[in-house]
Amino acid sequence: MVNLVQRVEDTWRTCSKSDSSGASNSGCESSKESSRSSTPVLDTDRTDRLRDKMRHRTESGDHWFSLEFFPPRTASGAVNLISRFDRMGSGGPLFIDVTWHPAGDPGSDKETSSMMIASTAVNYCGLESILHLTCCNQTKEKITGYLSKAKRLGLKNIMALRGDPMGADWEEEEAGFNYATDLVKHIRCEFDDYFDICVAGYPTGHPEAESYDEDLRHLKEKVDAGADFIITQLFFRADTFLKFVRDCRAIGITCPILPGIFPIQGYQSLRQLVKLSKLEVPEEIMQVIEPIKDNDAAIRNYGIEQAVSMCRVLLESGEVPGLHFYTLNREVATMEVLRQLGLWIEDPRRTLPWAVSAHPKRKVEDVRPIFWASRPKSYIYRTQDWDDFPNGRWGNSSSPAFGELNDYYLFYLKSKSSKDALLKMWGEELTSEQSVYEVFTSYITAQPNVAGHKVMCLPWNDDPLAPETNLLKDELDKVNRRGVLTINSQPSINGKPSSDPIVGWGPPGGYVFQKAYLEFFTSSENVTALLKVLKKYEPRVNYHIVNVHGQNTTNAHDMQPNAVTWGIFPGREIVQPTVVDPVSFLYWKDEAFALWIEQWAKLYEDESPSRMIIKYIHDNYFLVNLVDNDFPLDNCLWQVIDDMFELLDNPPEEQPAESLEPPRLFLGLGVWPN
Amino acid sequence: MVNLVQRVEDTWRTCSKSDSSGASNSGCESSKESSRSSTPVLDTDRTDRLRDKMRHRTESGDHWFSLEFFPPRTASGAVNLISRFDRMGSGGPLFIDVTWHPAGDPGSDKETSSMMIASTAVNYCGLESILHLTCCNQTKEKITGYLSKAKRLGLKNIMALRGDPMGADWEEEEAGFNYATDLVKHIRCEFDDYFDICVAGYPTGHPEAESYDEDLRHLKEKVDAGADFIITQLFFRADTFLKFVRDCRAIGITCPILPGIFPIQGYQSLRQLVKLSKLEVPEEIMQVIEPIKDNDAAIRNYGIEQAVSMCRVLLESGEVPGLHFYTLNREVATMEVLRQLGLWIEDPRRTLPWAVSAHPKRKVEDVRPIFWASRPKSYIYRTQDWDDFPNGRWGNSSSPAFGELNDYYLFYLKSKSSKDALLKMWGEELTSEQSVYEVFTSYITAQPNVAGHKVMCLPWNDDPLAPETNLLKDELDKVNRRGVLTINSQPSINGKPSSDPIVGWGPPGGYVFQKAYLEFFTSSENVTALLKVLKKYEPRVNYHIVNVHGQNTTNAHDMQPNAVTWGIFPGREIVQPTVVDPVSFLYWKDEAFALWIEQWAKLYEDESPSRMIIKYIHDNYFLVNLVDNDFPLDNCLWQVIDDMFELLDNPPEEQPAESLEPPRLFLGLGVWPN
Repeated sequence: MVNLVQRVEDTWRTCSKSDSSGASNSGCESSKESSRSSTPVLDTDRTDRLRDKMRHRTESGDHWFSLEFFPPRTASGAVNLISRFDRMGSGGPLFIDVTWHPAGDPGSDKETSSMMIASTAVNYCGLESILHLTCCNQTKEKITGYLSKAKRLGLKNIMALRGDPMGADWEEEEAGFNYATDLVKHIRCEFDDYFDICVAGYPTGHPEAESYDEDLRHLKEKVDAGADFIITQLFFRADTFLKFVRDCRAIGITCPILPGIFPIQGYQSLRQLVKLSKLEVPEEIMQVIEPIKDNDAAIRNYGIEQAVSMCRVLLESGEVPGLHFYTLNREVATMEVLRQLGLWIEDPRRTLPWAVSAHPKRKVEDVRPIFWASRPKSYIYRTQDWDDFPNGRWGNSSSPAFGELNDYYLFYLKSKSSKDALLKMWGEELTSEQSVYEVFTSYITAQPNVAGHKVMCLPWNDDPLAPETNLLKDELDKVNRRGVLTINSQPSINGKPSSDPIVGWGPPGGYVFQKAYLEFFTSSENVTALLKVLKKYEPRVNYHIVNVHGQNTTNAHDMQPNAVTWGIFPGREIVQPTVVDPVSFLYWKDEAFALWIEQWAKLYEDESPSRMIIKYIHDNYFLVNLVDNDFPLDNCLWQVIDDMFELLDNPPEEQPAESLEPPRLFLGLGVWPN
Repeated sequence: MVNLVQRVEDTWRTCSKSDSSGASNSGCESSKESSRSSTPVLDTDRTDRLRDKMRHRTESGDHWFSLEFFPPRTASGAVNLISRFDRMGSGGPLFIDVTWHPAGDPGSDKETSSMMIASTAVNYCGLESILHLTCCNQTKEKITGYLSKAKRLGLKNIMALRGDPMGADWEEEEAGFNYATDLVKHIRCEFDDYFDICVAGYPTGHPEAESYDEDLRHLKEKVDAGADFIITQLFFRADTFLKFVRDCRAIGITCPILPGIFPIQGYQSLRQLVKLSKLEVPEEIMQVIEPIKDNDAAIRNYGIEQAVSMCRVLLESGEVPGLHFYTLNREVATMEVLRQLGLWIEDPRRTLPWAVSAHPKRKVEDVRPIFWASRPKSYIYRTQDWDDFPNGRWGNSSSPAFGELNDYYLFYLKSKSSKDALLKMWGEELTSEQSVYEVFTSYITAQPNVAGHKVMCLPWNDDPLAPETNLLKDELDKVNRRGVLTINSQPSINGKPSSDPIVGWGPPGGYVFQKAYLEFFTSSENVTALLKVLKKYEPRVNYHIVNVHGQNTTNAHDMQPNAVTWGIFPGREIVQPTVVDPVSFLYWKDEAFALWIEQWAKLYEDESPSRMIIKYIHDNYFLVNLVDNDFPLDNCLWQVIDDMFELLDNPPEEQPAESLEPPRLFLGLGVWPN
């Protein structure tokens, strides 16, 4: 493991170095050397390449699909698109691609830039991604700069285009690059074999080409210059594509050719597209559409039906290993086509219990603290500067440096719901701590709150309860009602098959295990009782208890991480991808407490009672985590909480002074009284 | 894990550096700096120190014992003593100590030197050890050299003596060090706090001291100079010791004082001892012994009884945290005393399934290949030059460098049985491969062989079958009879408590697991059938099959180690201390095949039929290992072997060419036919 980590690390460093020299020097000859220096390193990464994944899937006859998106115009559009990536990513696309939007400052750090959207897909959504890049009207320096930045951000695939004829407003120029071939050559010259390169094919010929044959010759040039595969412009008849593939093969184009599928989704969008792409819509389609042109639903249904039947012909031809979808950033039609084709993977096998980032630097990441289970993007963001991701990062000897939350990150942190929607879910007006408890129970039970609104998220959970957590719903409901405000939990699992639809992950033939985990906020009064109760559960239950000021108590005697999720697989070392560890818990504590204020308290006026209630909880409650180490037995954590309530309800009479000790005194102690 | 390993590694390197400068420079002032440089590093190792272990045991009221040995006179005596270390080590001594034998070239590399014996105890037997060192008649340079060497060999504790009055033949000198105090000061000056230092106390006063009080003052000086604890000279009455402790405390000696216990084992040895130590044997003891002085058994029984009753008084006094035994290199009396006192730990808790080396460099070692399970000393020897012992040492990216077997190592390899005994066990004359099979079955079943001798060991197994392997006895018997010559195996285990007396290991409250493992030599004909059978068991069973020429086949598609023993414990990461890995298996293969020739074939005359039979097996058989990955199910490896026999007994008729293919052809292929 160690040496592997080191090697991949070295890979990363070598690549970064080659980057910077490439960026500062656009001359091809002089930068050759630095490009070459990365070649042997890339060899070691071969199995991870998109072109290899494509080849393996093709060889095994396993059809795939991919999805094309364009960058959004607004920041809130970006938030929505990222959620869409997560949802559509769950269906198992081989890759997604993001178009280059020259008018949208595409290489910038803006939230809406092509570069940032593709980078987010890779780093935060774990999607293999292709960044489009158009070269017309650009200097070599500028292009090299974009490519270097893309590489630095973890992007590994480029769609090399002269200019995107779909929906972009560029104009042809005589200066700079004029053909996609020039761009392909430039990428190979400056970055050697680092990027997988895709180019566009035109089944009916490029509208500006002299002829279909002339256009095929151009395509051959692009492939010969170093392109790895072809994605075609959209088309309306399977025969169009199949003839195109035959013609390509006839002139010696051997690489994969992926058909671009465009499910018709509306009359206007179709007209717009046809105008831009200079394609002709076949008569038989127009005859169906014209009569229903004002009925959006009918057109969409027809589009789905038409796409499905065309895709069936393509897949059955044996010439089509995978399908590429022009989604127009919409979900419904494409997902429906994929479902009907049986390509949408409802329950994709997870390689680990959390989504692995697609950034090459993080490929070796094999363990994360459980605390960020519902906030994986925050974890990725705050650890983006880490050099390595080994087991035991949080051991005795080293403190991890977690990045701070900052303004840019707040874009990712920002709730997807509007302030109004949040107020409806979390209460227009809070009257007591109890009204906060009710928000939690509404979320847990998926029942409407007192105002009749469903609580779909909490500051610590962007999404409704996970299926796994659902197993614990009744218990969670009961304890939240009494102010044990749960934000993370998992049941114990004693050797379920790795193929289990709910808790399974990892390669087939394995077994997965979990220790029960529970994390919650609760009052200092409850904590006082809890600490007494926990003495009975030594050493079965490990706990960490901390307040916003960092007062911290634990019975984890050393600073070792406690593995709470692990898997045993044929022919492998044990994988232990989730841990509870004392060090990162203190970083998580900062984030967990900050969310009370940033996401909830700030919904209300300064000094308002509602805001004061949230602030009171933030200032006075404790964040608690409990692990039941005895995973083969029934989870005892509910019993621990029951015992705590029992002690609170029936305090032992003989020690009134101790049990009635006010929370304030308890909190005021410099040294924790345990 | 990684960082921890690195840190301990750095510790080791820092210490080594400080060593060499210390060794080349005996002046105290000038070497201060180098000594100081190791101090912060040693702080991190604090919990591992003998003085801390002693303190923890004392604080918890948990009595301990320790054992003193002297170096042997002959190489075969050394082999015997090392076996005794293993046997007496299993009773759980806190430490052992090895006396300094000035006449025996004690600091040399000779097998019988004090230095080598103590080093073997630490490195190969995993025993916390104290090396005695006498300083009289020695230069500072010489002493510093000994200490540096001790440190380099992994020794961490020194018993600082002027000269050992027990059984050694030294003479007092005016030059050099004259008092143990000088040596204590020298160690602290040259090596700072690296060593834990023990000094000798004399309950009746040192025979050469002017007075008892004068001697106590000398002892105080030794402690003030930096000694960590005291072991006393032997004595015959509990009161003698208890008064001595009171007198020590009265003058401000606060460190632990361990009573030296000498169970009387014979009349002559008692007289000899008394003469050397100038001690008086109390009248009440002489009165008992004199009448039975020719009855060794009676004297030994009395000695045991006398020691037990004296120890009981000591332990009950509350002044005695642990007992130190002068064993005279004998086992019976000391073990009996310890058993009667309840201090002998019949089933010591193992921290890992294999015995952890006590060398500080190897403290972090947490994984070993299963292949050396019966030959741990060989593994330690062949990996002694490794820098680190991480998980995944045998992963994709790095080949471990195993040291070669060499002449010195053959000392450790050398069978403890004589050639005659081996011939009786393994056959004076072998007539066929079958007669070799019978040796294996005799060993497995613990039944006498055809000549009526029990087979107590095999070249690959120095000791009789382990209790764990005993669980598999019937199956092993059956397959060995048919030429599946098993040399290593473990059953599958699905979560037994870590306290399980047979398979348990690690801290309390945990669960241990195993994948079933079987390793054997077998003919190429069997292997041909086995490979066909194994196709049915994909991917459940992983295999590696290799012959002496290195022809190697496996279905482990990547080079990952397969964890076959692991444990889950409260508050910890998963521990996976035993693996099957493809890389180290090829090093083990060399050793496993060499043992056929070195230990077995060479018992017979050159060109003799017996020798030719062993040589034939060596040249033609394969070494096979099998892992059943499905640990929660019943072990399928016996079924695999049964299926192989079934296929051999009833070859499918339709493919006679293939199944009758001669083994020779199979072996002759340059590329393995799979």
